[in-house]
Amino acid sequence: MSIVTAWAPGSVSNVSSGFDVLGFAIEEPGDRVTATREDAAGVRITEVRGDDGRLPRGAGENTAGVAARQLLAHRGDPFGVSLVLEKGMPLASGLGSSAASAVAALVAVDALFDSPTPREVLLRCAMEGERIACGTGHADNVAPSLYGGFVLVRGRGESVRVDSLPVPPELWCAVVHPHLEVPTREARSKLPDRVALADAVAQAGNVAALVAGLAVGDTELLASGIEDRFAEPVRTDAVPGFAAAKAAAGDAGACGCGLSGSGPTMFAFAPDRSAAEHVAVAMREALARAGAGDGTDLWISRVGVPGARVL
Amino acid sequence: MSIVTAWAPGSVSNVSSGFDVLGFAIEEPGDRVTATREDAAGVRITEVRGDDGRLPRGAGENTAGVAARQLLAHRGDPFGVSLVLEKGMPLASGLGSSAASAVAALVAVDALFDSPTPREVLLRCAMEGERIACGTGHADNVAPSLYGGFVLVRGRGESVRVDSLPVPPELWCAVVHPHLEVPTREARSKLPDRVALADAVAQAGNVAALVAGLAVGDTELLASGIEDRFAEPVRTDAVPGFAAAKAAAGDAGACGCGLSGSGPTMFAFAPDRSAAEHVAVAMREALARAGAGDGTDLWISRVGVPGARVL
Repeated sequence: MSIVTAWAPGSVSNVSSGFDVLGFAIEEPGDRVTATREDAAGVRITEVRGDDGRLPRGAGENTAGVAARQLLAHRGDPFGVSLVLEKGMPLASGLGSSAASAVAALVAVDALFDSPTPREVLLRCAMEGERIACGTGHADNVAPSLYGGFVLVRGRGESVRVDSLPVPPELWCAVVHPHLEVPTREARSKLPDRVALADAVAQAGNVAALVAGLAVGDTELLASGIEDRFAEPVRTDAVPGFAAAKAAAGDAGACGCGLSGSGPTMFAFAPDRSAAEHVAVAMREALARAGAGDGTDLWISRVGVPGARVL
Repeated sequence: MSIVTAWAPGSVSNVSSGFDVLGFAIEEPGDRVTATREDAAGVRITEVRGDDGRLPRGAGENTAGVAARQLLAHRGDPFGVSLVLEKGMPLASGLGSSAASAVAALVAVDALFDSPTPREVLLRCAMEGERIACGTGHADNVAPSLYGGFVLVRGRGESVRVDSLPVPPELWCAVVHPHLEVPTREARSKLPDRVALADAVAQAGNVAALVAGLAVGDTELLASGIEDRFAEPVRTDAVPGFAAAKAAAGDAGACGCGLSGSGPTMFAFAPDRSAAEHVAVAMREALARAGAGDGTDLWISRVGVPGARVL
């Protein structure tokens, strides 16, 4: 093929006690990239839509371009590509926007080859895109966007390891994005270098409960593990109404609620679709009462959904 | 009934990345307590066997006596009891010896009543026994000894929560006890008050892998999570040959190996009984080469085994 369009989903990372190690793909929103095979070597970004002109157009500064360059180099640069990036999700929202762009570009470019590239290679190419966008080549958004489902990410760079976790089929989530922006670099700078051993033990116990709750489909156990001792305490100031929205989610039937990524988007798990809808609306109302941003986007999604794909 | 004998198993706590939150019961060794109903109020320990005279005989200083007193008080002290404690396991070995004594006493005394006491109450009574023995009323040995199986323990005191984790039926473990003693109080004093955030994140990722590996029966994933960043680095000095024994366990087919409790006992998971036997022997040989103690006890056990019971 000489022209391919691919789509990659956004993702929820830093899943409370799963700070820096857990992430999951969502059904929507996501980004779309069309890659066209070109005789001239290299990567050109010919168009970016849906970003109000805010993203860099240079292939060396844009995550989609960086990731595509990595992949072409890995395959021996047999041809060049031009990319059209259609942003379907808000920037700096905590939903892995840069990861979705990188992953969509990789899946589109990869389909221009006769044989597929191993998924682990695509993962590393996408991580390089993340390094450009966020200053850290972490996989906790690119892995769920690429693989789909709920993933455990350990390690960095060449030593990264991704494992898919079992998820109960009926688990849903509400994703609520107040119109605020929290740059990832700034959010990371607030994190402490060291934490109390007691908090580290509590975090480990909570993530164990979260993973066990997912594995056995016990939403009460899952919810009992949704408490982050590391990042949430220093990050929620950036989201007016966070505590009220979390309480509202619980009252509306959520089984756990927290920041997505470094915020401002919030996620909440729910035991079925209808509950997820109620939870999302309750969170939006609480955020509106607290004056969080000039509006809110809502998405409802199953939790165990496929990752990026060619359209 | 006016006389009851109960048995409670030893347990492996601080399961590597599950430091302070995970524990599991083993088939053997364990402790046995015979409780006899007495007209005179209160608890008397009439005999302790198998401890070379080292344990306190006063009911207020012995974990079995303290736990039994708590239970009688909870039930309104309708009668008294005398206890015979038969230690079937080494003291200060890292196998929850004090917890097994407390739990065996509770199960025996409880069976003297016409109706059973809720398990959560027995757990709290046993934790009080642990507080006397170890200086901290933690449940990470009493919970597996009482409930059986593999448990997640969060919180302390009244707010403790115990959840049973899924375990693959074919999982075995080797338990190897070099004849050294590591008092729990001393081992705890070596722990750092604070840890690097990066280590805390790594620990959370590893315990997530451990729990997921147990849940889906993936021994490679399980093994990948068996790395403790908090306690093992400061505790293994007390066990000469620890690193060599761990390496030998891996070479012999173990899927993860670490200290049991605060040591000196070591545990290793294995995918079947035969592998567990090979692993245990390989560990014993490595410890002997390193001159760890004047001998070694070995036990082989399934991992998902029942807890304490009336005999």
